[in-house]
Amino acid sequence: MKAEIIAVGTELLLGQIVNTNAKYLSEQLSSLGINIYFHSVVGDNEARVKDVIGIASQRADLVIFTGGLGPTDDDLTKEVLAAYLKQPLEISETELAKLQISLKKRKIEWLDSLSKMVTFIPGSYILNNELGTAPGMIYTQNNCTYVLLPGPPREMVRMFEGYAIPWLKDNYIPHGTMTLYSHVLKFLGITEGKLEDTLLDLITEQEVPTLATLVQQGEVHLRLTARALNESAFMEIISPVLKEIEGRVGQFIVGRDKESLTENNSKALVHHKLTVSTAESCTGGMLGARLTSIPGSSAYYRGSVIAYQNEIKSKVLSVPQSLLEEKGAVSSEVASAMAEGVSKLTGSSVGIGITGIAGPEGGTPQKPVGLVYVALHSPTHNWCDSFTFHGDRDNVRYSAAKMAEYLLFRYLREISHG
Amino acid sequence: MKAEIIAVGTELLLGQIVNTNAKYLSEQLSSLGINIYFHSVVGDNEARVKDVIGIASQRADLVIFTGGLGPTDDDLTKEVLAAYLKQPLEISETELAKLQISLKKRKIEWLDSLSKMVTFIPGSYILNNELGTAPGMIYTQNNCTYVLLPGPPREMVRMFEGYAIPWLKDNYIPHGTMTLYSHVLKFLGITEGKLEDTLLDLITEQEVPTLATLVQQGEVHLRLTARALNESAFMEIISPVLKEIEGRVGQFIVGRDKESLTENNSKALVHHKLTVSTAESCTGGMLGARLTSIPGSSAYYRGSVIAYQNEIKSKVLSVPQSLLEEKGAVSSEVASAMAEGVSKLTGSSVGIGITGIAGPEGGTPQKPVGLVYVALHSPTHNWCDSFTFHGDRDNVRYSAAKMAEYLLFRYLREISHG
Repeated sequence: MKAEIIAVGTELLLGQIVNTNAKYLSEQLSSLGINIYFHSVVGDNEARVKDVIGIASQRADLVIFTGGLGPTDDDLTKEVLAAYLKQPLEISETELAKLQISLKKRKIEWLDSLSKMVTFIPGSYILNNELGTAPGMIYTQNNCTYVLLPGPPREMVRMFEGYAIPWLKDNYIPHGTMTLYSHVLKFLGITEGKLEDTLLDLITEQEVPTLATLVQQGEVHLRLTARALNESAFMEIISPVLKEIEGRVGQFIVGRDKESLTENNSKALVHHKLTVSTAESCTGGMLGARLTSIPGSSAYYRGSVIAYQNEIKSKVLSVPQSLLEEKGAVSSEVASAMAEGVSKLTGSSVGIGITGIAGPEGGTPQKPVGLVYVALHSPTHNWCDSFTFHGDRDNVRYSAAKMAEYLLFRYLREISHG
Repeated sequence: MKAEIIAVGTELLLGQIVNTNAKYLSEQLSSLGINIYFHSVVGDNEARVKDVIGIASQRADLVIFTGGLGPTDDDLTKEVLAAYLKQPLEISETELAKLQISLKKRKIEWLDSLSKMVTFIPGSYILNNELGTAPGMIYTQNNCTYVLLPGPPREMVRMFEGYAIPWLKDNYIPHGTMTLYSHVLKFLGITEGKLEDTLLDLITEQEVPTLATLVQQGEVHLRLTARALNESAFMEIISPVLKEIEGRVGQFIVGRDKESLTENNSKALVHHKLTVSTAESCTGGMLGARLTSIPGSSAYYRGSVIAYQNEIKSKVLSVPQSLLEEKGAVSSEVASAMAEGVSKLTGSSVGIGITGIAGPEGGTPQKPVGLVYVALHSPTHNWCDSFTFHGDRDNVRYSAAKMAEYLLFRYLREISHG
């Protein structure tokens, strides 16, 4: 199993975009036990694409392309591959009908030039594009398998995971191949340094699984990796180390693998039949957007207020004018009053208030840029955390929304346990 | 001038890191007037690195390597290149002394294996590494120039800008070579296909500047590219084509170059001394988050309501209960009532309402997933757009927030013009 990844697109050679597709595919293929020996990038040029295909066909038995499947003349991956393999391209009537229906739904005018997207080498396996218009294709000739994926990363990922991986497992990867598995623990409330310190003996002495930390999306992630025949064999291998980690730092775990803090909060809110509302100042709606990013969020999310100016804080959220004057809009008292005010306004069981200075302007020596108060109000609880975040405006806002979710997470855990 | 960029490093093939070096170097080389025809990535393997060098030497006259200059056995770029060119590697006494002094300063113990980093092909040009220990090298043989740079991006960038570019300007790039400039027009309200159709004669017939479209962040971007001696000469070159494009599709342009739609709206709001409030249902705060992402947004943003459930729409935004029952929460009438309600509640000059079905559940044949109404209310205007967006929940929400910004953009343009 020797694979090569070829990205087709002049925009990559001009440095307009980064080839993140190659990183993603490399990670995925590696974990499937497939070796990647080369990446190539080539522009939208017939002769040069043909050269690259010729070289790859010599040194690999799996060639994965990204890009060049669209409707324009510049999109030529499929055309050049077919010419190289001396195969025709024929319109698939099924795919043509699907494409026309999908465009009609979206009120996009039909153009004959679009039919180019639904031509395929006869006998090839067609890959459905759920998030875009250009389907992909898998075709094997002379013991070399060619997989054609679209360039836009979202479309490519969905197609690869939904259709190409299952095909590869059935048709390309030998049974009994050991696959690289990993399990990720996501931490909040503990720094990367502190986590590494606490687990130092495990990180340095452990050979299986290997342990590695990474800061991502404002969280500290710990990745446990090992080769195994299947998922359950892998979970058995890592089980003793996992138990040891949970014993030492379990209270900081907010998610595992693909499960996000937002999803975990969503599940717990549904489980406890609770509703939540938010009163956001400096985050301007980011927390609301996160809480409603989960399908079915209407079960626990009623509505919220973005209270940017003081007038809105007092008028809509009933924050006392005197509190705003005495303590200032950025204070734990105002954050708590916002949380309480929004839960009363919307009738939600839990209210969350955020107020802070996102910057770059507006800081003072007493209240510097990055100072944020996050408060939670419920019939039984009144909590308020304060932070001084570093970095730019985006980072302060992102971190504030994240820590508000962490406050909600701790509240939901506390009421679960007692 | 035909260049190829080769990244050496197994970590790239495993998908542990993204090849941002290739993007950076492509951008730099393009703007210097050098054409890049290929990127390659190869692992730390002698035979395969040699293969890649052989291929590149045939099709390029400038080969730029990143990575593989360090002290370990895995670092083999220089060694394999020297062997390929049948040249020896010799220690530079000057570089050796510099390296030893630098390590001593940083209290790093000297090891004989480190001297590998200061070996070079005799007659090569040595590139200073200001931020690390491994120097780079430039060597020319048989009309092909090889530039060896370190892998860590910070070290690479400093070395390339500080030492490699000056060398290339003096020794590789002919005097009076034009630099590549580009100007990007950002469109909304027109599909990529329709834009290409409308500009087809320009796209196909125009040699200078070249025109290319790209879908990015929900917008269609049109890039005008040409070589010129400097920025103002470039703007002069593109001026007639730019005028022609503006004449045909100028009404869809929402931004240029690095300027975003959000920033342009922010500037126009400040200029007209207007304030805006949002009433969001399916987007749950995303529009508010975008409007407040710009520093100084408190000048035009007072506050908003996220009205997820009907009760909040009627209670907080005063949307008539009868309207919700007769027309349904997802309707143009409710979107307009939300826009009006929020502008009254907050006292803002403009109100924007968004209501729709983000999915994946909740669609009906009459009101499918993806259906979104976006309304704008001001003392003089009452506008409502409807859309049926494609893709998943994230995409529907993202597109809805984007089109709401576009509605605001059109409103601000209209009041500017009359």
